[in-house]
Amino acid sequence: MALSAGESQHALRVLRMQPGDELLLLNGRGVVARAKLLPPEPGVRRVHQAMCQILDMQLYQQSEPTLELCVAPPRGKAFDLVLKAATELGYAVIQPILCRYGVARPDGIADGWQETLIAALKQSCNPWLPEVRSPREFSAVLADGVPGVFGASPAAEATPHQPLSVETARRVQRLWVGPEGGFADDEEKALLAAGVIPVTIGTATLRVETAVPALTGFLFGRLPEPDGRSS
Amino acid sequence: MALSAGESQHALRVLRMQPGDELLLLNGRGVVARAKLLPPEPGVRRVHQAMCQILDMQLYQQSEPTLELCVAPPRGKAFDLVLKAATELGYAVIQPILCRYGVARPDGIADGWQETLIAALKQSCNPWLPEVRSPREFSAVLADGVPGVFGASPAAEATPHQPLSVETARRVQRLWVGPEGGFADDEEKALLAAGVIPVTIGTATLRVETAVPALTGFLFGRLPEPDGRSS
Repeated sequence: MALSAGESQHALRVLRMQPGDELLLLNGRGVVARAKLLPPEPGVRRVHQAMCQILDMQLYQQSEPTLELCVAPPRGKAFDLVLKAATELGYAVIQPILCRYGVARPDGIADGWQETLIAALKQSCNPWLPEVRSPREFSAVLADGVPGVFGASPAAEATPHQPLSVETARRVQRLWVGPEGGFADDEEKALLAAGVIPVTIGTATLRVETAVPALTGFLFGRLPEPDGRSS
Repeated sequence: MALSAGESQHALRVLRMQPGDELLLLNGRGVVARAKLLPPEPGVRRVHQAMCQILDMQLYQQSEPTLELCVAPPRGKAFDLVLKAATELGYAVIQPILCRYGVARPDGIADGWQETLIAALKQSCNPWLPEVRSPREFSAVLADGVPGVFGASPAAEATPHQPLSVETARRVQRLWVGPEGGFADDEEKALLAAGVIPVTIGTATLRVETAVPALTGFLFGRLPEPDGRSS
């Protein structure tokens, strides 16, 4: 099979791979293939397209639990960090949400997002590419009625601090991370009214790009350990 | 009291604060003071130094548990992200460690580290500045014999997967995060032999800047919830 122009460039020019070298190919839908770079056709001087032969392939299940990240995009580069982290952490879906205090209000899927996800997929060897969705209003996403947890500001004294039991943690399908300044008071009230559980990590304000992995780690910490290691 | 030249510049030129405006002052050792900007001395045209009056102050205890982050510094800017996240997450100590596969081998505390910590302190309103220590060899730090957890690569099949009980989580004082490629096999063996507990988050490889908040969140998820909210 032939690699795309971009991947060929990366393999041949950047990594300077030689015929016979092995590489891993991901399709982002669970397949990881081990392949071998083939020698160029006889007579060809400059090779622009890398041809390779699949040696074997394996299908990985999507990691459990299947989680959706509902996140208020921070400005510019910071959202790239969030997209990368979400890919490494195995999110199935990334849903940008438009909140009262959100600093960025993208009106669609920005050009660079998919590229960032693919780069993170390759770097982390996650076999599954997250699906990034078009930004939606906070209240519309909340109306879906999916069980979840949200990162609550340590300053929000009004937020009742409920423990997140193992049983509740098991049911969580969505993690909500608000903008830098936190969710607005009425947004927090709406989350609580919808049964989304508040989680506060530490006593200082977390940037969005810190809150996403910290909240995800917290949820994993609440889940029972798997019996065996996933491969 | 007088603000430093840098903070004066920030308050007067960047934020364009006016006499009477309130500001929060942090000393990084637990004190948070509310202050009011004073008008300039009569006759002064251009004000370079901001004078302010303390309105009240509060002393915050260092957040519990008191944690030390032992981390293999990633290259350049990525370590800044780690320093920021560690400040937001309330680490007391940041100990850079020199590992076999570490990509950066700083031979001392770099110039920019303290500035990054202070900027993160101000942004996150954490009353306690972490202490960043001079980089040390992995084995020397491990020899201190402090209880901890480490981020284990999902690929490291050899790592026995022990559950992290609440009792063990309570005793944790150190979190170990290795370099991008993970700890070397003999480093993992040494960690295990020293009783440091492996934790794997997800099934993909995490960058250091994702692993730090994710592992911290995981530990917090394992700790019993506090009875009341800390303020």
